[in-house]
Amino acid sequence: MEFVKMHGTGNDFILINEVEVGWQDIGNIAKRLCDRHFGIGADGLILVCKSNKFDARMRIINADGSEAEMCGNGIRCFAKYVYDRKIVTKKKMEIETLSGVVRPEVVTDDNDKVRMVRVDMGVPHLEPDSVPVRWEGRLINEPIAFGDKTLHISSVNTGVPHTVIFVSDIDSFPIEVYGPVIEKYNIFPVGTNVNFVQVMNRKRLMVRTWERGVGMTMACGSGACASAFISNVLGYIEREVIVSLPGGDLFVEVNNNIYMTGPCVEVFHGDISLWS
Amino acid sequence: MEFVKMHGTGNDFILINEVEVGWQDIGNIAKRLCDRHFGIGADGLILVCKSNKFDARMRIINADGSEAEMCGNGIRCFAKYVYDRKIVTKKKMEIETLSGVVRPEVVTDDNDKVRMVRVDMGVPHLEPDSVPVRWEGRLINEPIAFGDKTLHISSVNTGVPHTVIFVSDIDSFPIEVYGPVIEKYNIFPVGTNVNFVQVMNRKRLMVRTWERGVGMTMACGSGACASAFISNVLGYIEREVIVSLPGGDLFVEVNNNIYMTGPCVEVFHGDISLWS
Repeated sequence: MEFVKMHGTGNDFILINEVEVGWQDIGNIAKRLCDRHFGIGADGLILVCKSNKFDARMRIINADGSEAEMCGNGIRCFAKYVYDRKIVTKKKMEIETLSGVVRPEVVTDDNDKVRMVRVDMGVPHLEPDSVPVRWEGRLINEPIAFGDKTLHISSVNTGVPHTVIFVSDIDSFPIEVYGPVIEKYNIFPVGTNVNFVQVMNRKRLMVRTWERGVGMTMACGSGACASAFISNVLGYIEREVIVSLPGGDLFVEVNNNIYMTGPCVEVFHGDISLWS
Repeated sequence: MEFVKMHGTGNDFILINEVEVGWQDIGNIAKRLCDRHFGIGADGLILVCKSNKFDARMRIINADGSEAEMCGNGIRCFAKYVYDRKIVTKKKMEIETLSGVVRPEVVTDDNDKVRMVRVDMGVPHLEPDSVPVRWEGRLINEPIAFGDKTLHISSVNTGVPHTVIFVSDIDSFPIEVYGPVIEKYNIFPVGTNVNFVQVMNRKRLMVRTWERGVGMTMACGSGACASAFISNVLGYIEREVIVSLPGGDLFVEVNNNIYMTGPCVEVFHGDISLWS
């Protein structure tokens, strides 16, 4: 079975054209393919599917076998995959996902290959039912105690549920301790991604994301958008900001909709036999 | 550039036919290829080379760019690679490595594809100059203090330098704390791999290895041999033993030479452009 391995700012994916396969147990297959020693190794598996209404449909399965609604870095890789292979020939495309239609716009090089993708990440949702979070009114900058530490929590949905927490020194903050606790905290009925954010200046954020069902990753695109949005709501930054992640930089514009621009790289392609 | 991804009990390698490439800066290329997010991802890169005197020559570069003398799991993958591709057509072959000639014997299935490989790992060396270790006489079961903890240390060379430490409960022992300290301890002029061993019974060991220049890995073949050898010298086990590693089981025979038998699996093959 043929596959392509790609990454968007170090958040890496196996892409497979679903037309060529007919899988029942996609969760277990994703686990096996995403294993970094016994499989291909990736943060997630992306299935390139046909759509009845739109240009194409993206399914994304996390390394733990759970299906994600959307992924900001994943959709950039998806857009490069379908444009470079002429599955979709428009530079502004409409992609069906579990969190609705997403609109990536590809930026190509001299060989008409995609180098960067700008994604309309849609309108962020702060209403508790939309995040979802069990809270009276919007959850913005509310102090919540975790053991003997009080963190100020904001939650927003930018395709998937995100929680944003500002810290004064991101390199020394114990993300691996608080990430998994907040991910499964009881006010989040379906869990949440957790973004730890340091404001560098009004034009730049540093963000580390603990991803629901994955753990620490190189870069979470929808988390970068959530972090920029909450930072802007609280007046910490301008509307256009560079978000620095461990895997590289993203450019985020906060307007009515949020726009994210970032790189996508095809690392290699290969062939794997699932049944050997 | 074409490559094959293989693993031996979860210790995983990228294999490349050196005839097809002509690299200067192999250390940096190995680092880049072995990166699990931006590259292919592996514990090491194996170059399949021609030999003037023997059936073939193996070079193995660790993920950190340093070159290893030999690797027990790596040579099994190497033997499968060259036999399945008819580069070597003998079932008992002689492979040139930096630690001398190694003799793997392949076990094939009905399709003449290699499933298991038995490797003559040669004679283990206990003499201090051969390990190498700066010590008066053989270093076997000597108490050495690391901070407030005293560990009993044995050192042997089974292709590469290995240190063996017996622990009563391998699951709770803080390997990540002591592994890197002992790896670079001042009595080891070129460093050492560090094996933490729990004796389950006279026929089975559990082993976790901290590999020099790599860190924790799924399975270290030469470490399994070193662990079985020292366990036998100290009278803890019989001459034939199953060594259980995180990535699977190896069968080790301790005679004048040490023989190791274990699986090797081709996971996928692919094509990567180094310059894109």
